[in-house]
Amino acid sequence: MNRTFIKVAQTNVPVKIEGFLERIRNTRNMAFLVVRDRSGALQATIKKEQHPDWTEVLDHLTLESVVSLEGTIQENPQVKLGGRELIPTRLEPLSLAAALPLSKDANIDTRLDYRWIDLRAEKERLIFEVQTCLVSAMRTFLVERDFLEIHTPKLIAAASESGADVFEVDYFDQKAYLAQSPQFYKQMAMASGFERIFETGPVFRAEKSYTNRHTTEFTGFDLEFSYIESFHDVMQLEAELLTYALSQVQTRYGEAITRLYGKEVVVPKLPFPVIALPELYRELEQRYGYYLPESERGDTTTEAEQLSYRFSMEEFGHEFLLITDFAAQKRAFYHMRKEGVPQGYDLVWRGVEITTGAQREHRYDVLCQQANERGLGEDVRFYTEFFRYGCPPHGGFGLGVDRLTMLLLGIGIKEAMFLFRSPNRLTP
Amino acid sequence: MNRTFIKVAQTNVPVKIEGFLERIRNTRNMAFLVVRDRSGALQATIKKEQHPDWTEVLDHLTLESVVSLEGTIQENPQVKLGGRELIPTRLEPLSLAAALPLSKDANIDTRLDYRWIDLRAEKERLIFEVQTCLVSAMRTFLVERDFLEIHTPKLIAAASESGADVFEVDYFDQKAYLAQSPQFYKQMAMASGFERIFETGPVFRAEKSYTNRHTTEFTGFDLEFSYIESFHDVMQLEAELLTYALSQVQTRYGEAITRLYGKEVVVPKLPFPVIALPELYRELEQRYGYYLPESERGDTTTEAEQLSYRFSMEEFGHEFLLITDFAAQKRAFYHMRKEGVPQGYDLVWRGVEITTGAQREHRYDVLCQQANERGLGEDVRFYTEFFRYGCPPHGGFGLGVDRLTMLLLGIGIKEAMFLFRSPNRLTP
Repeated sequence: MNRTFIKVAQTNVPVKIEGFLERIRNTRNMAFLVVRDRSGALQATIKKEQHPDWTEVLDHLTLESVVSLEGTIQENPQVKLGGRELIPTRLEPLSLAAALPLSKDANIDTRLDYRWIDLRAEKERLIFEVQTCLVSAMRTFLVERDFLEIHTPKLIAAASESGADVFEVDYFDQKAYLAQSPQFYKQMAMASGFERIFETGPVFRAEKSYTNRHTTEFTGFDLEFSYIESFHDVMQLEAELLTYALSQVQTRYGEAITRLYGKEVVVPKLPFPVIALPELYRELEQRYGYYLPESERGDTTTEAEQLSYRFSMEEFGHEFLLITDFAAQKRAFYHMRKEGVPQGYDLVWRGVEITTGAQREHRYDVLCQQANERGLGEDVRFYTEFFRYGCPPHGGFGLGVDRLTMLLLGIGIKEAMFLFRSPNRLTP
Repeated sequence: MNRTFIKVAQTNVPVKIEGFLERIRNTRNMAFLVVRDRSGALQATIKKEQHPDWTEVLDHLTLESVVSLEGTIQENPQVKLGGRELIPTRLEPLSLAAALPLSKDANIDTRLDYRWIDLRAEKERLIFEVQTCLVSAMRTFLVERDFLEIHTPKLIAAASESGADVFEVDYFDQKAYLAQSPQFYKQMAMASGFERIFETGPVFRAEKSYTNRHTTEFTGFDLEFSYIESFHDVMQLEAELLTYALSQVQTRYGEAITRLYGKEVVVPKLPFPVIALPELYRELEQRYGYYLPESERGDTTTEAEQLSYRFSMEEFGHEFLLITDFAAQKRAFYHMRKEGVPQGYDLVWRGVEITTGAQREHRYDVLCQQANERGLGEDVRFYTEFFRYGCPPHGGFGLGVDRLTMLLLGIGIKEAMFLFRSPNRLTP
């Protein structure tokens, strides 16, 4: 017989139900087992006199063991769990669990030590259901617009951008490094005439940070596209992409997210509001008395990002805010500049930066000059070569999948990741 | 004005066309430019007397420069390229190309040195269009069946399976390793009750191999699912998945693949043929005189795989062949065994192994024993722990995306990858 998900199992027909044992009550005459699968939970009710040969099995069942049950589901208003119960005709333990090492109120680090048990809760699994939906929607959106998916190497010969915070790998008789971003290679695809590309893949950062936002390895969602008129095309594509993805999440998981995380999934309105950084600082000062000396106003601060959420909600009724006009020295050398102003933006969602996007400098001479100004000329020569033999104007951005998930559900990065990595955590 | 793809640009209305210059013919009175974008190529015809101010621009244009052209497309049967030409009213170079370092007949290694130029050819780009379609179809197939996507860490504390062929990373004050497969973590997701998961991500192998099939980094497509009855469920899912994906590729790119690679995309019939390894060897001996001593018949050989293609076509008219009943000592310790026979298979396509799949051993005691037999007890203790607290029966398989692409198009691994990596290649 084929196994049926509990949620869709019909009453009064033979069914096979398989899952973890969430509760066990084994009395003299009766046994009650609550079985949980990915779709829900169901009580199995056993009259022991009808199954004298099950006594030993029942006595040995432990919480979180995995069982297979065949039988018929009946309506029974007295059963709290959905008003129905399974009357089993077959009971088979598939895997007996040892005594659980993890209590319900364990702290997050202990939970991570036993992550595979921690993830069994509906609330934890929802994180990955939502993430699957979010990323799948983003990919679908792009594939429908003729974007190509690429897989760029994570083993590279030179540190991506600055050489700091990069992991070193023993690579046969030489050294390799782990890519901190697919930036250079996704731009290479533009020089290859691919025109529109995206990539989902791991990104590595050797940062000794122990905040609730940082990790040494996370999943990046990156895209790049050609023949843009300006970075406004990039902002627009990102806004449309996120709006589409969030609408999919809301439709499918909005109710569950509110029930389990107390968060509302808001499908943003288009276009997203935009503000220049100097103006944002003026607003934050006037409205909330947040003062930063003029000399520090070329970049955002964590506090300014947080306040910008309040500002954006008050002024635009919008959770997202696009911030432009950063100072050139605060942005990557490969961002295009116009009269000295970087042609890019940060996107802040619910008070946290989720993207840096930009039009890239595709003109070889200008790009080399901007690299040289930072003293990077030699280090990035393999990259500047991409622009010597013709390259379309282009732009793009990167998103952290884990950070998006974190903000969507209002949780920390440790919980948002399947398996968190930090300077002192490499296991499980 | 918005840019239009050449393929869909209409005649007799103003259009903007942008792309690389594929040909330039600049005579005294006329200039002919062939512009190429991702959708096709188009000739722009310029009467120079109508644009005296373009003379200098035209004189400086080089092959593979990127230009923007506005104008009107007219029918002209004399033009070889599709019988139409663009009469431009605006011409703007977006990026001037230096003299190209790559000739048309360069060998593959030189081509890889300048991969971003090499990839501009329609034939090369098709590789990634096909790969995008293939992977996208596989993901869609799985998401529609409630599979969750996970992103497992590539930085791990212990070598995945054997400790051989693993890259070592300096990880703050300790050593980390690059994951050779997501195997252990996708099984962890089964112990977490995720029931059905897949992952696409990089896989690292520190092998000093220089064949046309090996690389140090490739893209793996892995899945795992719970509550299977036997490994036949795994074989069936894989067959259905590949059939679906290949039907998508055939519909969308079948014609282009035949035109550019001379290969036919065959949508396989279900179910895939299955043969036990000892029987396969008997067939290969009887039919083709391929003899291997009994003691070596517990595993396949490269030659046996190649011959099995011939056998499968002759016997079943099928490009795929599922091979079962390998010798236990030739298979991973975590494969479930039944009367000593590993409950798994290899899938061979067009004479090359593309998958190892299996039902996994989910019973803690048996798994520990099988690990101990190999002397792996301590090394894999973090992994065997996953099975101590209840775990459903499960199985799965992994595919190499690059190898699939390679076999689909009949090309080598160096060409099938966006950027190839080997012991002596880390660039570009």
